[in-house]
Amino acid sequence: MNNFLFLGGDLRSVYAAEKLNERFDCFIYGQENLWLPTPIQTPVLREVTKCRNLVLGLPSSCDGETINAPNWNETIYPEIILEAVENGGTVFAGKAFEKLSSLCEKHGFKFIDYFAREELAVMNAIPTVEGAIEILMRESSSTIYDMSVLVTGFGRLGKVLIKRLVALGAQVTVAARKFSDMSWAEIGGCKSMHISELEANLSRFDAVINTIPAKIFFEKEIKKMSPCLIFIDLASKLSVFDKAFIERQGIKVLWELSLPGRVAPVTAGRVIADTILNIIAETRSD
Amino acid sequence: MNNFLFLGGDLRSVYAAEKLNERFDCFIYGQENLWLPTPIQTPVLREVTKCRNLVLGLPSSCDGETINAPNWNETIYPEIILEAVENGGTVFAGKAFEKLSSLCEKHGFKFIDYFAREELAVMNAIPTVEGAIEILMRESSSTIYDMSVLVTGFGRLGKVLIKRLVALGAQVTVAARKFSDMSWAEIGGCKSMHISELEANLSRFDAVINTIPAKIFFEKEIKKMSPCLIFIDLASKLSVFDKAFIERQGIKVLWELSLPGRVAPVTAGRVIADTILNIIAETRSD
Amino acid sequence: MNNFLFLGGDLRSVYAAEKLNERFDCFIYGQENLWLPTPIQTPVLREVTKCRNLVLGLPSSCDGETINAPNWNETIYPEIILEAVENGGTVFAGKAFEKLSSLCEKHGFKFIDYFAREELAVMNAIPTVEGAIEILMRESSSTIYDMSVLVTGFGRLGKVLIKRLVALGAQVTVAARKFSDMSWAEIGGCKSMHISELEANLSRFDAVINTIPAKIFFEKEIKKMSPCLIFIDLASKLSVFDKAFIERQGIKVLWELSLPGRVAPVTAGRVIADTILNIIAETRSD
Amino acid sequence: MNNFLFLGGDLRSVYAAEKLNERFDCFIYGQENLWLPTPIQTPVLREVTKCRNLVLGLPSSCDGETINAPNWNETIYPEIILEAVENGGTVFAGKAFEKLSSLCEKHGFKFIDYFAREELAVMNAIPTVEGAIEILMRESSSTIYDMSVLVTGFGRLGKVLIKRLVALGAQVTVAARKFSDMSWAEIGGCKSMHISELEANLSRFDAVINTIPAKIFFEKEIKKMSPCLIFIDLASKLSVFDKAFIERQGIKVLWELSLPGRVAPVTAGRVIADTILNIIAETRSD
Repeated sequence: MNNFLFLGGDLRSVYAAEKLNERFDCFIYGQENLWLPTPIQTPVLREVTKCRNLVLGLPSSCDGETINAPNWNETIYPEIILEAVENGGTVFAGKAFEKLSSLCEKHGFKFIDYFAREELAVMNAIPTVEGAIEILMRESSSTIYDMSVLVTGFGRLGKVLIKRLVALGAQVTVAARKFSDMSWAEIGGCKSMHISELEANLSRFDAVINTIPAKIFFEKEIKKMSPCLIFIDLASKLSVFDKAFIERQGIKVLWELSLPGRVAPVTAGRVIADTILNIIAETRSD
Repeated sequence: MNNFLFLGGDLRSVYAAEKLNERFDCFIYGQENLWLPTPIQTPVLREVTKCRNLVLGLPSSCDGETINAPNWNETIYPEIILEAVENGGTVFAGKAFEKLSSLCEKHGFKFIDYFAREELAVMNAIPTVEGAIEILMRESSSTIYDMSVLVTGFGRLGKVLIKRLVALGAQVTVAARKFSDMSWAEIGGCKSMHISELEANLSRFDAVINTIPAKIFFEKEIKKMSPCLIFIDLASKLSVFDKAFIERQGIKVLWELSLPGRVAPVTAGRVIADTILNIIAETRSD
Repeated sequence: MNNFLFLGGDLRSVYAAEKLNERFDCFIYGQENLWLPTPIQTPVLREVTKCRNLVLGLPSSCDGETINAPNWNETIYPEIILEAVENGGTVFAGKAFEKLSSLCEKHGFKFIDYFAREELAVMNAIPTVEGAIEILMRESSSTIYDMSVLVTGFGRLGKVLIKRLVALGAQVTVAARKFSDMSWAEIGGCKSMHISELEANLSRFDAVINTIPAKIFFEKEIKKMSPCLIFIDLASKLSVFDKAFIERQGIKVLWELSLPGRVAPVTAGRVIADTILNIIAETRSD
Repeated sequence: MNNFLFLGGDLRSVYAAEKLNERFDCFIYGQENLWLPTPIQTPVLREVTKCRNLVLGLPSSCDGETINAPNWNETIYPEIILEAVENGGTVFAGKAFEKLSSLCEKHGFKFIDYFAREELAVMNAIPTVEGAIEILMRESSSTIYDMSVLVTGFGRLGKVLIKRLVALGAQVTVAARKFSDMSWAEIGGCKSMHISELEANLSRFDAVINTIPAKIFFEKEIKKMSPCLIFIDLASKLSVFDKAFIERQGIKVLWELSLPGRVAPVTAGRVIADTILNIIAETRSD
């Protein structure tokens, strides 16, 4: 029987279970004292039950030793999968860790890292971008309409971000490394520049949103930024060569990582469920 | 000489002065201990000076007796215009009040209510709508993308609101009274319904944003709303027949009036300046 | 019984019948040798039958004497309504003409001019605008993307037109008379100018699309136009003071009236049916 | 001296020269009796002159033997490059052919195939898509607004195509092979389906636009198509297993290859010029 136990994880796991529960029998374990913005139908268990499929949270572990279960009072060890998964069953985990994957291999469980799926990353760009826009609205004394915004990078996040900013009426410039990405940005209604031209152009922006997980802002770039600039980093804390330096310029810096789970757990949970549904569909058609 | 004194008002007056200062000599009076999110160039005076034009805040008075000057420690009376305006000069006020307009008439000042201008109302719809979207993002556990939103009313606010919500990927329905407004909403990418069909359709929305300044939600409508509904009222506190009743249903209600000055004072100030520039342009071409 | 006879008219009448036939019994008369791009289910009669409702074409008459029936070999006179409408029935006509309306009054038929409905005019803006865009694509050697287009007027046509042009990536400027319309155009992603500034700015456009039914282009304006300009007039043949003069400048002029029936008869027919459905809904709720 | 000779090619070569002429000295050879929709400034020569850079058309040859020069009466052989390029100069060609590239190598000319550049392919998607939309508007009796359109494939063409179709108000479905592409299509406002579900869903579309250069429509798929369907193939004549078969079903089939040069030579020429400018910029920063 194709049933699912969602074990641990944050609110996203709860809403993933709720979405998947529309199609399969689902159970939740390792969540207590939940304060839920929207009510759920899926049974929340006090004891582990054995299911065909086990779904761990995102990430599946924070320390490489124990299962990530922030809403549960006791420590949960990977060995719990022996009680939770039927023979020949499947473990779905958000990012793998060695102890878990070797345990699966040893006991003959199929192991799938759903976080490695491209479509999950694509769909997660939406709550991330909405979180970034909410922050920009909150921090700015101007509207996004007519605001001059620089987006650095044109990967998944950059693509969704410019779509939303342009739709809100911002004047958007994209800094990218590939000429073809610059062309795509222009088709999307933006101006574009090569990343090598950053320094010469930084002074005219009201906001910068970085999506590149690498150091790209050095002393000479930061010195060109307006002190009124709002700087939001969605990719890493590494984009700026020296955090103390940029803040000494009076620039408001916001390091915003892992937005999806924080700003929109319901949506981020559904994204996990949709990804699991895709994996199931693929397995069937194999 | 066409110079302007901006007297009293909130931060919008400061940024209106700053924008107009690009074209005319401007001065600010009646603002102290300003904390400004972005720095300004316009001189902030400690004493009133006489100018060709006087610009009061929005509103020009809160009590019908004194000039609205929330950032100033002393009470300012309408009679200050005798010290502040040259013979034959002009007083621009955000909403008229009787003491002020009769004083202008008596002393031969031209009196203009800039708040009565249609384009100011249009341009103010943008910060209002951005404020509403920020609130919706903050209050919801889902993304606006794919959210089911009902917008009641299709005036200035409704038109800008659906444009932004559709652009963010929401499933938007407009409830309006005129068939032609329903057609416009559909052209804008929404579904539409006649306002008389509200009761039958309310249960399926995640959020309702009201823009109609009249009572439209009664007991039978409210009973159909989901308890998870987010209800944002941009038009008035009158839209719901009984505020206590709707809150007892567990519905989160947000009465959001005067958003432009709060969420985007820089933009709202520029809107005032642009409106004054339009008035000047019209006067010249007469 | 609420049935409908569609009598005369062009292809729009056929598709209006076909759409309304989904909800009511409909019949078609006064169409022969139809070449239909998409097949229909509604019965096409060789003899008039009496129905509760009669729907004439758009326009209902071309000469004020006879019924407009371009696909029928014989002349049809207004008196046919005595054979075609039940006692107390309704005549729907696209534009009234005196002979018809007085006949209705005399015989106690309800008379409704569906062309006078605002929502029909709104919905007809869509096929008109698509027709204009098709013409612009066909006539230009550049893409609409990045083309510099001036739209004169900001009524129904102007509003839909800028929405589509901006979406296709054109650089759009709107010339309007009201400052509030200029603000709306800017919110819609356009630049705007006051109509009084036409002459000074005309030289920089690749295309002009007029939607104002009045003379606005005089010798001094036309002399500023580029000889490569594409000029499309959607409103009237009156917009240019002298047609021979503009064509002598080498400018390609396209007078495009009544596009909906020509470019998209299926859609234009459905618009008529939707309008009739609205009229019925209103009558019921009265 | 960095000058350019544009030799042969179609109208795109003329407009590429005209665009590049804004920055470098450019000359045109191998074009006569040109009818130009917009006038040009670049000198059109009757004799070959030697330049630093030579730019051939797109494609550079149609037969692998001679230079493609459709607007020139005489045959031009690849050996002309010896008269046309300075020692150590560069030959830019739209697609390479062996005789040309070996000649370049032998004589020490740098050889660059500008057609191989990703950004040219991206930018060419715009005129291709506008051409497809013009065809769809012309061939259909309905508006694109509210039309049910299936786009097969989600590469460069598919991405630009859905952006435009959605903006025009169509109901767009994308059929793709990758789940992440299906997610992107949904973010873009479309419905999506896996390509394996084609057969089951084909009956409900008014139009199909194919962008996949491979056989995907077989007898069982075609039998599900409505006879009113408009089928536009932008990728190849291979998408349908048997051309005679689909046409026997009454389906209107339009094989539209090489649209950019036909529908928008000015834009397509500028795209070539922009690509050459990018190549020059890259070479400098090396």
